Amino acid sequence: MFKGYIPEDKIFLAVDCIIFGFDDEDLKVLLIQRDFEPEKGKWSLMGGFLKKNETLDDAAARILFRLTGMHDIYLEQLYAFSAVDRDPVERTISTSYYAIINIEKHNEELIENYNAKWFSLSQIPQLIFDHNEMLEKAVRRLRRRTSINPIGFELLPEKFTMRQLQKLYETILDKELDKRNFINKIKSMDIVVKLNEKDMTSSTKGSYLYKFDQNKYDAKQVNDFYLKL
Amino acid sequence: MFKGYIPEDKIFLAVDCIIFGFDDEDLKVLLIQRDFEPEKGKWSLMGGFLKKNETLDDAAARILFRLTGMHDIYLEQLYAFSAVDRDPVERTISTSYYAIINIEKHNEELIENYNAKWFSLSQIPQLIFDHNEMLEKAVRRLRRRTSINPIGFELLPEKFTMRQLQKLYETILDKELDKRNFINKIKSMDIVVKLNEKDMTSSTKGSYLYKFDQNKYDAKQVNDFYLKL
Repeated sequence: MFKGYIPEDKIFLAVDCIIFGFDDEDLKVLLIQRDFEPEKGKWSLMGGFLKKNETLDDAAARILFRLTGMHDIYLEQLYAFSAVDRDPVERTISTSYYAIINIEKHNEELIENYNAKWFSLSQIPQLIFDHNEMLEKAVRRLRRRTSINPIGFELLPEKFTMRQLQKLYETILDKELDKRNFINKIKSMDIVVKLNEKDMTSSTKGSYLYKFDQNKYDAKQVNDFYLKL
Repeated sequence: MFKGYIPEDKIFLAVDCIIFGFDDEDLKVLLIQRDFEPEKGKWSLMGGFLKKNETLDDAAARILFRLTGMHDIYLEQLYAFSAVDRDPVERTISTSYYAIINIEKHNEELIENYNAKWFSLSQIPQLIFDHNEMLEKAVRRLRRRTSINPIGFELLPEKFTMRQLQKLYETILDKELDKRNFINKIKSMDIVVKLNEKDMTSSTKGSYLYKFDQNKYDAKQVNDFYLKL
Protein backbone atom coordinates (compact mmCIF):
# COMPACT_ATOMS: atom_id res chain seq x y z
CA MET A 1 0.00 0.00 0.00
CA PHE A 2 1.33 3.42 -1.00
CA LYS A 3 1.73 5.91 1.82
CA GLY A 4 2.99 9.43 1.68
CA TYR A 5 4.68 11.23 4.50
CA ILE A 6 6.68 14.12 5.69
CA PRO A 7 8.94 13.17 8.54
CA GLU A 8 6.41 14.03 11.20
CA ASP A 9 3.37 13.26 9.13
CA LYS A 10 1.92 10.77 6.70
CA ILE A 11 -0.44 10.83 3.79
CA PHE A 12 -2.18 7.91 2.13
CA LEU A 13 -2.80 7.89 -1.59
CA ALA A 14 -6.15 6.35 -2.46
CA VAL A 15 -8.29 5.92 -5.54
CA ASP A 16 -12.09 5.83 -5.40
CA CYS A 17 -14.30 4.69 -8.27
CA ILE A 18 -17.74 6.00 -9.14
CA ILE A 19 -19.25 3.15 -11.17
CA PHE A 20 -22.24 4.09 -13.32
CA GLY A 21 -24.59 1.59 -14.91
CA PHE A 22 -27.83 1.89 -16.85
CA ASP A 23 -30.62 -0.67 -16.74
CA ASP A 24 -32.91 0.70 -19.51
CA GLU A 25 -34.86 2.61 -16.90
CA ASP A 26 -32.48 4.34 -14.63
CA LEU A 27 -28.93 5.58 -14.22
CA LYS A 28 -27.44 3.77 -11.25
CA VAL A 29 -24.26 3.77 -9.24
CA LEU A 30 -22.61 0.77 -7.59
CA LEU A 31 -21.90 1.22 -3.88
CA ILE A 32 -20.38 -1.09 -1.30
CA GLN A 33 -21.24 -1.45 2.36
CA ARG A 34 -18.12 -0.72 4.35
CA ASP A 35 -17.20 -3.60 6.68
CA PHE A 36 -14.45 -1.91 8.68
CA GLU A 37 -13.98 1.18 10.82
CA PRO A 38 -14.22 4.10 10.55
CA GLU A 39 -17.86 4.38 9.50
CA LYS A 40 -18.35 0.60 9.41
CA GLY A 41 -21.74 -0.35 7.91
CA LYS A 42 -22.06 2.89 5.95
CA TRP A 43 -22.25 2.93 2.16
CA SER A 44 -19.18 3.91 0.22
CA LEU A 45 -17.65 4.14 -3.21
CA MET A 46 -15.33 1.27 -4.10
CA GLY A 47 -11.78 2.36 -3.39
CA GLY A 48 -8.29 1.21 -2.62
CA PHE A 49 -4.74 2.41 -2.16
CA LEU A 50 -2.19 3.12 -4.83
CA LYS A 51 0.46 0.41 -5.17
CA LYS A 52 4.14 0.73 -5.89
CA ASN A 53 4.93 1.11 -9.61
CA GLU A 54 1.27 1.63 -10.41
CA THR A 55 -0.21 4.72 -12.02
CA LEU A 56 -3.48 6.16 -10.74
CA ASP A 57 -5.14 4.81 -13.91
CA ASP A 58 -3.75 1.34 -13.16
CA ALA A 59 -5.07 1.51 -9.61
CA ALA A 60 -8.54 2.58 -10.76
CA ALA A 61 -8.68 -0.24 -13.32
CA ARG A 62 -7.50 -2.76 -10.72
CA ILE A 63 -10.08 -1.62 -8.17
CA LEU A 64 -12.84 -1.71 -10.77
CA PHE A 65 -11.85 -5.19 -11.88
CA ARG A 66 -11.76 -6.40 -8.30
CA LEU A 67 -15.38 -5.36 -7.80
CA THR A 68 -16.92 -6.06 -11.19
CA GLY A 69 -14.62 -8.58 -12.88
CA MET A 70 -14.64 -6.22 -15.88
CA HIS A 71 -11.71 -5.06 -18.00
CA ASP A 72 -11.32 -2.45 -20.74
CA ILE A 73 -14.20 -0.22 -19.79
CA TYR A 74 -14.63 3.53 -19.95
CA LEU A 75 -12.75 4.99 -16.99
CA GLU A 76 -11.94 8.66 -16.56
CA GLN A 77 -10.06 10.51 -13.87
CA LEU A 78 -12.46 12.87 -12.15
CA TYR A 79 -10.73 14.84 -9.41
CA ALA A 80 -8.17 14.58 -6.61
CA PHE A 81 -9.82 15.24 -3.24
CA SER A 82 -7.33 16.52 -0.71
CA ALA A 83 -9.14 18.20 2.21
CA VAL A 84 -6.82 17.72 5.18
CA ASP A 85 -9.51 16.14 7.36
CA ARG A 86 -11.54 14.26 4.74
CA ASP A 87 -10.52 10.97 6.38
CA PRO A 88 -10.78 11.28 10.18
CA VAL A 89 -8.16 8.59 10.87
CA GLU A 90 -5.24 9.24 8.49
CA ARG A 91 -4.73 12.06 6.04
CA THR A 92 -5.61 10.59 2.65
CA ILE A 93 -5.67 12.19 -0.76
CA SER A 94 -8.10 10.32 -2.97
CA THR A 95 -8.08 10.63 -6.74
CA SER A 96 -11.53 9.68 -7.93
CA TYR A 97 -12.34 8.02 -11.24
CA TYR A 98 -15.68 7.34 -12.82
CA ALA A 99 -16.50 4.29 -14.86
CA ILE A 100 -19.41 3.50 -17.14
CA ILE A 101 -20.32 -0.15 -17.38
CA ASN A 102 -23.01 -2.22 -18.94
CA ILE A 103 -25.01 -3.29 -15.92
CA GLU A 104 -25.64 -6.79 -17.31
CA LYS A 105 -21.98 -7.58 -17.73
CA HIS A 106 -20.64 -7.29 -14.22
CA ASN A 107 -19.83 -10.36 -12.15
CA GLU A 108 -22.75 -10.86 -9.76
CA GLU A 109 -20.75 -13.08 -7.42
CA LEU A 110 -17.96 -10.56 -7.02
CA ILE A 111 -20.21 -7.68 -6.13
CA GLU A 112 -22.08 -9.87 -3.61
CA ASN A 113 -18.78 -10.62 -1.89
CA TYR A 114 -18.39 -6.88 -1.39
CA ASN A 115 -21.97 -6.34 -0.23
CA ALA A 116 -22.25 -4.07 -3.24
CA LYS A 117 -25.59 -2.77 -4.51
CA TRP A 118 -26.81 -0.65 -7.41
CA PHE A 119 -28.51 2.58 -6.28
CA SER A 120 -30.59 4.89 -8.41
CA LEU A 121 -29.28 8.45 -8.33
CA SER A 122 -32.53 9.46 -6.66
CA GLN A 123 -31.89 7.07 -3.78
CA ILE A 124 -28.28 7.64 -2.81
CA PRO A 125 -27.75 7.20 0.94
CA GLN A 126 -25.38 9.21 3.10
CA LEU A 127 -21.93 7.97 2.10
CA ILE A 128 -18.67 7.97 4.05
CA PHE A 129 -16.26 10.88 4.05
CA ASP A 130 -16.70 13.13 0.98
CA HIS A 131 -18.03 10.34 -1.26
CA ASN A 132 -21.37 12.10 -1.82
CA GLU A 133 -19.44 15.08 -3.13
CA MET A 134 -17.38 12.78 -5.38
CA LEU A 135 -20.56 11.22 -6.74
CA GLU A 136 -22.20 14.61 -7.39
CA LYS A 137 -19.10 15.79 -9.21
CA ALA A 138 -19.08 12.59 -11.27
CA VAL A 139 -22.74 13.06 -12.26
CA ARG A 140 -22.03 16.64 -13.38
CA ARG A 141 -18.99 15.47 -15.36
CA LEU A 142 -20.96 12.60 -16.91
CA ARG A 143 -23.71 15.02 -17.98
CA ARG A 144 -21.21 17.43 -19.47
CA ARG A 145 -19.31 14.64 -21.23
CA THR A 146 -22.49 13.19 -22.60
CA SER A 147 -23.32 16.58 -24.10
CA ILE A 148 -19.88 16.81 -25.65
CA ASN A 149 -19.10 13.32 -26.82
CA PRO A 150 -21.04 10.10 -27.00
CA ILE A 151 -19.64 8.17 -24.08
CA GLY A 152 -23.22 7.26 -23.33
CA PHE A 153 -22.91 4.53 -25.94
CA GLU A 154 -20.86 2.53 -23.46
CA LEU A 155 -24.06 2.00 -21.54
CA LEU A 156 -26.04 0.46 -24.38
CA PRO A 157 -26.10 -3.02 -25.87
CA GLU A 158 -24.03 -3.33 -29.06
CA LYS A 159 -27.16 -2.95 -31.18
CA PHE A 160 -29.73 -0.44 -30.01
CA THR A 161 -32.76 1.49 -31.21
CA MET A 162 -32.93 5.28 -31.41
CA ARG A 163 -35.57 5.05 -28.68
CA GLN A 164 -33.14 3.27 -26.36
CA LEU A 165 -30.46 5.85 -27.12
CA GLN A 166 -32.84 8.74 -26.47
CA LYS A 167 -33.99 7.15 -23.21
CA LEU A 168 -30.36 6.83 -22.13
CA TYR A 169 -29.65 10.50 -22.84
CA GLU A 170 -32.88 11.58 -21.16
CA THR A 171 -31.86 9.61 -18.09
CA ILE A 172 -28.31 10.90 -17.94
CA LEU A 173 -29.30 14.51 -18.63
CA ASP A 174 -32.40 14.15 -16.47
CA LYS A 175 -34.71 15.90 -18.93
CA GLU A 176 -37.09 15.01 -21.75
CA LEU A 177 -35.80 15.49 -25.27
CA ASP A 178 -37.68 16.16 -28.47
CA LYS A 179 -37.59 12.98 -30.56
CA ARG A 180 -37.07 14.51 -34.00
CA ASN A 181 -34.46 16.94 -32.73
CA PHE A 182 -32.60 14.20 -30.94
CA ILE A 183 -32.51 11.90 -33.95
CA ASN A 184 -31.30 14.73 -36.19
CA LYS A 185 -28.55 15.65 -33.74
CA ILE A 186 -27.37 12.08 -33.39
CA LYS A 187 -27.36 11.61 -37.17
CA SER A 188 -25.54 14.91 -37.68
CA MET A 189 -22.75 13.57 -35.46
CA ASP A 190 -22.26 10.79 -38.00
CA ILE A 191 -21.08 8.24 -35.49
CA VAL A 192 -23.92 5.71 -35.55
CA VAL A 193 -24.51 3.19 -38.29
CA LYS A 194 -28.02 2.11 -39.21
CA LEU A 195 -28.22 -1.67 -39.49
CA ASN A 196 -30.37 -3.73 -41.78
CA GLU A 197 -32.03 -5.28 -38.76
CA LYS A 198 -35.06 -4.35 -36.73
CA ASP A 199 -35.99 -4.80 -33.12
CA MET A 200 -39.47 -6.30 -33.36
CA THR A 201 -40.19 -6.31 -29.62
CA SER A 202 -41.11 -2.63 -29.35
CA SER A 203 -43.75 -2.41 -32.10
CA THR A 204 -45.35 -4.51 -34.81
CA LYS A 205 -43.53 -2.72 -37.63
CA GLY A 206 -40.37 -2.77 -35.53
CA SER A 207 -37.59 -0.23 -35.02
CA TYR A 208 -34.30 -0.17 -36.89
CA LEU A 209 -31.23 -1.11 -34.91
CA TYR A 210 -28.08 1.03 -34.88
CA LYS A 211 -24.54 0.53 -33.73
CA PHE A 212 -21.90 2.98 -32.60
CA ASP A 213 -19.03 3.48 -35.09
CA GLN A 214 -15.92 3.71 -32.92
CA ASN A 215 -13.66 4.40 -35.90
CA LYS A 216 -15.69 7.35 -37.13
CA TYR A 217 -15.80 8.65 -33.57
CA ASP A 218 -12.06 8.25 -33.03
CA ALA A 219 -11.48 10.17 -36.26
CA LYS A 220 -13.12 13.21 -34.68
CA GLN A 221 -11.70 15.55 -32.10
CA VAL A 222 -13.81 16.08 -29.02
CA ASN A 223 -13.90 19.73 -30.04
CA ASP A 224 -15.22 18.87 -33.48
CA PHE A 225 -18.74 18.54 -32.23
CA TYR A 226 -20.86 19.34 -29.24
CA LEU A 227 -24.15 17.59 -28.78
CA LYS A 228 -26.22 20.36 -27.24
CA LEU A 229 -29.40 18.81 -25.88
CA MET B 1 7.85 19.36 1.52
CA PHE B 2 5.35 16.52 1.29
CA LYS B 3 6.75 13.12 0.38
CA GLY B 4 4.94 9.89 -0.03
CA TYR B 5 6.47 6.49 0.49
CA ILE B 6 6.00 2.85 0.95
CA PRO B 7 8.61 1.36 3.23
CA GLU B 8 11.04 0.62 0.40
CA ASP B 9 9.98 3.47 -1.83
CA LYS B 10 9.02 7.14 -1.90
CA ILE B 11 6.74 9.38 -3.85
CA PHE B 12 6.70 13.17 -4.01
CA LEU B 13 3.45 15.06 -4.29
CA ALA B 14 3.76 18.08 -6.55
CA VAL B 15 1.46 20.68 -8.04
CA ASP B 16 2.11 22.31 -11.43
CA CYS B 17 0.30 25.40 -12.70
CA ILE B 18 -0.59 26.18 -16.29
CA ILE B 19 -1.00 29.96 -16.24
CA PHE B 20 -2.95 31.43 -19.17
CA GLY B 21 -3.00 35.08 -20.06
CA PHE B 22 -4.45 37.08 -22.94
CA ASP B 23 -2.90 40.25 -24.36
CA ASP B 24 -5.65 41.34 -26.79
CA GLU B 25 -3.87 39.51 -29.56
CA ASP B 26 -2.88 36.14 -28.34
CA LEU B 27 -3.53 33.47 -25.74
CA LYS B 28 -0.28 32.98 -23.84
CA VAL B 29 1.10 30.75 -21.15
CA LEU B 30 3.64 31.71 -18.49
CA LEU B 31 6.69 29.44 -18.33
CA ILE B 32 9.79 29.52 -16.16
CA GLN B 33 13.33 28.57 -17.05
CA ARG B 34 14.42 25.81 -14.74
CA ASP B 35 17.61 26.68 -12.86
CA PHE B 36 18.32 23.30 -11.28
CA GLU B 37 18.88 19.73 -12.36
CA PRO B 38 17.44 17.62 -13.82
CA GLU B 39 16.82 19.40 -17.12
CA LYS B 40 18.40 22.66 -15.91
CA GLY B 41 17.90 25.46 -18.44
CA LYS B 42 14.81 23.91 -19.97
CA TRP B 43 11.43 25.62 -19.86
CA SER B 44 8.88 24.37 -17.38
CA LEU B 45 5.50 25.06 -15.85
CA MET B 46 5.62 26.72 -12.45
CA GLY B 47 5.34 24.07 -9.79
CA GLY B 48 6.07 23.15 -6.22
CA PHE B 49 5.53 20.49 -3.61
CA LEU B 50 2.50 20.01 -1.41
CA LYS B 51 3.01 21.18 2.17
CA LYS B 52 1.76 19.66 5.37
CA ASN B 53 -1.85 20.65 6.20
CA GLU B 54 -2.30 22.15 2.77
CA THR B 55 -4.88 21.03 0.22
CA LEU B 56 -3.91 20.71 -3.44
CA ASP B 57 -5.97 23.87 -4.10
CA ASP B 58 -4.01 25.72 -1.40
CA ALA B 59 -0.74 24.59 -2.94
CA ALA B 60 -1.77 25.71 -6.42
CA ALA B 61 -2.86 29.13 -5.12
CA ARG B 62 0.39 29.50 -3.16
CA ILE B 63 2.53 28.58 -6.18
CA LEU B 64 0.60 30.95 -8.40
CA PHE B 65 0.94 33.79 -5.91
CA ARG B 66 4.66 33.15 -5.59
CA LEU B 67 5.12 33.63 -9.31
CA THR B 68 2.57 36.31 -10.14
CA GLY B 69 1.82 38.07 -6.86
CA MET B 70 -1.85 37.51 -7.67
CA HIS B 71 -4.63 36.26 -5.40
CA ASP B 72 -8.25 35.23 -5.99
CA ILE B 73 -7.98 34.27 -9.61
CA TYR B 74 -9.66 31.53 -11.61
CA LEU B 75 -7.85 28.31 -10.77
CA GLU B 76 -9.13 24.86 -11.67
CA GLN B 77 -7.74 21.42 -10.99
CA LEU B 78 -6.88 19.80 -14.29
CA TYR B 79 -5.48 16.32 -13.81
CA ALA B 80 -3.19 14.22 -11.62
CA PHE B 81 -0.23 12.93 -13.65
CA SER B 82 1.18 9.74 -12.18
CA ALA B 83 3.32 7.92 -14.75
CA VAL B 84 5.88 6.01 -12.71
CA ASP B 85 8.86 7.44 -14.61
CA ARG B 86 7.57 10.95 -15.38
CA ASP B 87 10.29 12.42 -13.16
CA PRO B 88 13.61 10.63 -13.82
CA VAL B 89 15.02 11.34 -10.34
CA GLU B 90 12.24 10.61 -7.85
CA ARG B 91 8.79 9.24 -8.43
CA THR B 92 6.48 12.27 -8.31
CA ILE B 93 2.74 12.51 -8.80
CA SER B 94 1.87 15.99 -9.98
CA THR B 95 -1.64 17.38 -9.82
CA SER B 96 -1.87 20.11 -12.42
CA TYR B 97 -4.03 23.22 -12.16
CA TYR B 98 -4.73 25.85 -14.74
CA ALA B 99 -5.16 29.51 -13.99
CA ILE B 100 -6.50 32.35 -16.08
CA ILE B 101 -5.04 35.74 -15.29
CA ASN B 102 -5.20 39.21 -16.69
CA ILE B 103 -1.79 39.58 -18.25
CA GLU B 104 -1.47 43.23 -17.19
CA LYS B 105 -2.00 42.50 -13.54
CA HIS B 106 0.87 40.17 -12.71
CA ASN B 107 3.93 41.37 -10.82
CA GLU B 108 6.66 41.96 -13.41
CA GLU B 109 9.44 41.86 -10.84
CA LEU B 110 8.37 38.52 -9.43
CA ILE B 111 8.23 36.80 -12.78
CA GLU B 112 11.64 38.21 -13.71
CA ASN B 113 13.10 36.66 -10.55
CA TYR B 114 11.92 33.32 -11.87
CA ASN B 115 13.18 33.89 -15.41
CA ALA B 116 9.55 33.52 -16.40
CA LYS B 117 8.29 34.45 -19.87
CA TRP B 118 4.95 34.54 -21.65
CA PHE B 119 4.81 32.21 -24.66
CA SER B 120 2.18 32.19 -27.38
CA LEU B 121 0.58 28.77 -27.75
CA SER B 122 2.06 28.61 -31.24
CA GLN B 123 5.58 28.99 -29.85
CA ILE B 124 5.75 26.59 -26.93
CA PRO B 125 9.23 25.07 -26.55
CA GLN B 126 10.02 21.52 -25.48
CA LEU B 127 9.18 21.49 -21.76
CA ILE B 128 10.52 19.28 -18.99
CA PHE B 129 8.98 15.92 -18.10
CA ASP B 130 5.33 15.68 -19.23
CA HIS B 131 4.68 19.42 -19.04
CA ASN B 132 3.86 19.69 -22.77
CA GLU B 133 1.17 17.07 -22.22
CA MET B 134 -0.13 19.00 -19.20
CA LEU B 135 -0.30 22.17 -21.27
CA GLU B 136 -2.09 20.45 -24.16
CA LYS B 137 -4.62 19.01 -21.76
CA ALA B 138 -5.12 22.44 -20.20
CA VAL B 139 -5.74 24.04 -23.61
CA ARG B 140 -8.34 21.38 -24.45
CA ARG B 141 -10.00 21.89 -21.07
CA LEU B 142 -9.95 25.66 -21.46
CA ARG B 143 -11.58 25.37 -24.91
CA ARG B 144 -14.24 23.02 -23.58
CA ARG B 145 -14.90 25.21 -20.56
CA THR B 146 -15.10 28.33 -22.68
CA SER B 147 -17.77 26.62 -24.78
CA ILE B 148 -19.70 25.66 -21.68
CA ASN B 149 -19.37 28.63 -19.38
CA PRO B 150 -17.92 32.09 -19.72
CA ILE B 151 -14.68 31.77 -17.81
CA GLY B 152 -13.13 33.67 -20.68
CA PHE B 153 -14.37 36.87 -19.06
CA GLU B 154 -11.61 36.52 -16.49
CA LEU B 155 -9.19 37.47 -19.24
CA LEU B 156 -10.83 40.76 -20.15
CA PRO B 157 -10.70 44.21 -18.58
CA GLU B 158 -13.73 44.96 -16.40
CA LYS B 159 -15.33 46.90 -19.23
CA PHE B 160 -14.98 45.49 -22.71
CA THR B 161 -16.44 45.78 -26.19
CA MET B 162 -18.18 42.93 -28.00
CA ARG B 163 -15.28 43.04 -30.44
CA GLN B 164 -12.79 42.39 -27.63
CA LEU B 165 -14.93 39.56 -26.31
CA GLN B 166 -15.25 37.98 -29.75
CA LYS B 167 -11.50 38.28 -30.31
CA LEU B 168 -10.90 36.54 -27.00
CA TYR B 169 -13.19 33.64 -27.92
CA GLU B 170 -11.69 33.40 -31.38
CA THR B 171 -8.25 33.18 -29.82
CA ILE B 172 -9.15 30.60 -27.22
CA LEU B 173 -11.15 28.45 -29.65
CA ASP B 174 -8.63 29.12 -32.43
CA LYS B 175 -11.24 29.79 -35.09
CA GLU B 176 -13.05 32.74 -36.65
CA LEU B 177 -16.59 33.37 -35.46
CA ASP B 178 -19.48 35.03 -37.23
CA LYS B 179 -20.02 38.42 -35.62
CA ARG B 180 -23.84 38.50 -35.59
CA ASN B 181 -24.05 34.90 -34.40
CA PHE B 182 -21.57 35.51 -31.65
CA ILE B 183 -23.31 38.61 -30.35
CA ASN B 184 -26.67 36.83 -30.36
CA LYS B 185 -25.27 33.85 -28.45
CA ILE B 186 -23.60 36.05 -25.86
CA LYS B 187 -26.80 38.07 -25.41
CA SER B 188 -28.88 34.90 -25.19
CA MET B 189 -26.70 33.79 -22.27
CA ASP B 190 -27.89 36.92 -20.44
CA ILE B 191 -24.72 37.35 -18.42
CA VAL B 192 -23.33 40.57 -19.86
CA VAL B 193 -24.66 44.03 -19.09
CA LYS B 194 -24.55 46.77 -21.71
CA LEU B 195 -23.18 49.97 -20.21
CA ASN B 196 -24.09 53.53 -21.09
CA GLU B 197 -20.49 54.16 -22.08
CA LYS B 198 -18.63 53.83 -25.31
CA ASP B 199 -15.08 52.97 -26.17
CA MET B 200 -14.16 55.74 -28.65
CA THR B 201 -10.69 54.39 -29.52
CA SER B 202 -11.88 51.75 -31.97
CA SER B 203 -14.07 53.89 -34.24
CA THR B 204 -15.38 57.43 -34.59
CA LYS B 205 -18.91 56.49 -33.56
CA GLY B 206 -17.44 54.26 -30.83
CA SER B 207 -18.46 50.85 -29.51
CA TYR B 208 -20.62 50.23 -26.48
CA LEU B 209 -18.89 48.81 -23.43
CA TYR B 210 -20.20 45.78 -21.55
CA LYS B 211 -19.47 44.17 -18.25
CA PHE B 212 -19.85 40.63 -17.02
CA ASP B 213 -22.68 40.07 -14.52
CA GLN B 214 -21.27 37.64 -11.98
CA ASN B 215 -24.56 37.43 -10.07
CA LYS B 216 -26.60 36.49 -13.11
CA TYR B 217 -23.94 33.96 -13.99
CA ASP B 218 -23.83 32.46 -10.51
CA ALA B 219 -27.62 32.12 -10.64
CA LYS B 220 -27.24 29.72 -13.56
CA GLN B 221 -26.12 26.14 -13.48
CA VAL B 222 -23.23 25.28 -15.73
CA ASN B 223 -25.59 22.87 -17.46
CA ASP B 224 -28.16 25.60 -18.04
CA PHE B 225 -26.39 26.83 -21.11
CA TYR B 226 -23.77 25.75 -23.55
CA LEU B 227 -22.17 28.33 -25.76
CA LYS B 228 -21.70 26.33 -28.95
CA LEU B 229 -19.44 28.36 -31.20
